[in-house]
Amino acid sequence: MGIHLPYVILHAKQVLKLQSRHPADVSKGHVVVYVGKTEKIRFDVPIPYLNHSSFMHLLDRAEEEYGFDHPMGGLTIPENSAQSKGKKRKEKRQLQRQSKAKGFKGTAMAAQVEKHPVSSILIVIAMQTEALPVVNKFQLVETPHRLFPEGVPWVHYHGTYKDIIINLVWPGKDLTLGVDSIGTVSASLVTYASIQALQPDLIINAGTAGGFKARGAGIGDVYLVSHVAFHDRRIPIPVFDIYGVGLRQTFSTPNLLKALDLKAGKLSTGDSLDMTPQDEATITANDATVKDMEGAAVAYVADLFKVPAIFVKAVTDIVDSEKPTAEEFLQNLAAVTAALDEAVTQILDFISGKCLSEL
Amino acid sequence: MGIHLPYVILHAKQVLKLQSRHPADVSKGHVVVYVGKTEKIRFDVPIPYLNHSSFMHLLDRAEEEYGFDHPMGGLTIPENSAQSKGKKRKEKRQLQRQSKAKGFKGTAMAAQVEKHPVSSILIVIAMQTEALPVVNKFQLVETPHRLFPEGVPWVHYHGTYKDIIINLVWPGKDLTLGVDSIGTVSASLVTYASIQALQPDLIINAGTAGGFKARGAGIGDVYLVSHVAFHDRRIPIPVFDIYGVGLRQTFSTPNLLKALDLKAGKLSTGDSLDMTPQDEATITANDATVKDMEGAAVAYVADLFKVPAIFVKAVTDIVDSEKPTAEEFLQNLAAVTAALDEAVTQILDFISGKCLSEL
Repeated sequence: MGIHLPYVILHAKQVLKLQSRHPADVSKGHVVVYVGKTEKIRFDVPIPYLNHSSFMHLLDRAEEEYGFDHPMGGLTIPENSAQSKGKKRKEKRQLQRQSKAKGFKGTAMAAQVEKHPVSSILIVIAMQTEALPVVNKFQLVETPHRLFPEGVPWVHYHGTYKDIIINLVWPGKDLTLGVDSIGTVSASLVTYASIQALQPDLIINAGTAGGFKARGAGIGDVYLVSHVAFHDRRIPIPVFDIYGVGLRQTFSTPNLLKALDLKAGKLSTGDSLDMTPQDEATITANDATVKDMEGAAVAYVADLFKVPAIFVKAVTDIVDSEKPTAEEFLQNLAAVTAALDEAVTQILDFISGKCLSEL
Repeated sequence: MGIHLPYVILHAKQVLKLQSRHPADVSKGHVVVYVGKTEKIRFDVPIPYLNHSSFMHLLDRAEEEYGFDHPMGGLTIPENSAQSKGKKRKEKRQLQRQSKAKGFKGTAMAAQVEKHPVSSILIVIAMQTEALPVVNKFQLVETPHRLFPEGVPWVHYHGTYKDIIINLVWPGKDLTLGVDSIGTVSASLVTYASIQALQPDLIINAGTAGGFKARGAGIGDVYLVSHVAFHDRRIPIPVFDIYGVGLRQTFSTPNLLKALDLKAGKLSTGDSLDMTPQDEATITANDATVKDMEGAAVAYVADLFKVPAIFVKAVTDIVDSEKPTAEEFLQNLAAVTAALDEAVTQILDFISGKCLSEL
């Protein structure tokens, strides 16, 4: 998509300039687009979408029709050009509603109704060290106009790879302490806000994890996660106990797992880097091979909105060894992120051009 | 405000009907208001605000000027009437920015710049059993047009008490399991979404808690919390360890504490109802008298957006006793929520007509 960039910038500047006439009227990180010749319908489009091929096509059509004169104070697109995009969006919403009406059946339902190739992926990563190799690899750029509200440290990168729009978010550095905002609270918040803003087809939560050697994990192994659960939410009241554990099957990708040389395993999530005997008992009950600090929270939020989510976890440290977790984690973090980056690339290559049901 | 209700409904129906002309154009739970005679500026106003006295005034003025004819497809308000509201909002944002520019100084800064009486309070409660007495007491009504996106189980009530707009949110029942969505993930998500939608002047996180008898707590005691921290986020890496504990001073309300017969104490938050030896060690280090499952997460989110937050916690069970926590909690839950409800009423009575700096 690189060759289109100057053209995109020209258009974007034009639109942003026009928009300044009605500053109170536009959500942060969005541009206003009016569709139709007579009765104009307004859409607020996230800025990263300006870079997408189907939007490029609309911009071409808009220029043919109107040049750069947009009297509505926002980009105006002739109705016919926009119809296909509008229809597709409407159909997608309709299918999601149908899927919801049939009751809570996990994300498998979403796969049945999604017949178009995956076009937008949200990558959620907890730490800058884990995120930057992926950012560099796919030449993602930090979004200049914030996707998120003022006040949050969350960082958003975007770009395209092959035919896929990639949005990568990480929760940024804690504003007071300057360390990565790791853990379930930040991960769930940034996942929630990103789903609302971007409505991705698929979420990939990528990151490092502790591994259990008793279950076959070794440093540098990359796992594609089949199930997620929490191990530090003990609520010993009937049914609340099940809620606390929050076991979820991830979006099933048997073909992806077969095609790539990844290990399959279950993931257990908790807000501590270390492990108490109680944590260990629950991790064992969760049948987990890898342990992280975000996965089950990302899965919880993705599930609320029926967005399929997959989890790719690279092992930085062996939890069931004598070596202190923190020391081993820091020692291996940089090297293991390279393996993670490689796995994410392979996954995107595999996904490119495929529908969710083909993964 | 009761006497105005039929009038509000008339206006609201009128506005909602007009709005249906541009269905793609309005966020859920909002009505479109155009301000000004010539160059009309659009505002999207949350529906609960239709019930507020200052909005009532604008409706009166709008009716004088335009009757019920609003050709813009949304309520139109003459510029002069709206100016004071618009200005106030602009001034508030400017002050918030100034406060932010001066660096991270906690919520104390917010108090210095807020010189108008508290007009909008967000009450965050984790469980239905805790929420309903407050809902009934203040005759709050469930919002028919959802404030939150489709998919989430979060419930929103609103109403007015004296001169204060009250929005009460609880995270609802888990969609699969039917139990209250307790814990830090749901609490932080619903707090985040509510702040974005409602921009409250003050947050009150009210709920039940475990108390430590060694520190003077007894069943039914109500605490006004001075500090919050987490006790189950152990990250033994320098600085990350401090981030994990997440100690925060709450918004300071010395006059409120003096006027009401509440106990003062520190709160420690974790996602488990029970307590491991490691939890207990951290709770002791946190110097906490009460223990809950949401407070520090609500405080974290409130702090991101510099919204002052106070925490009112009523003791349902004694943690440092022989009696199992879960059993004692369930036994006392209903009775203790009555004490909680009484405390919330006293707090709202005290706040009514006062600025943040007078609390």
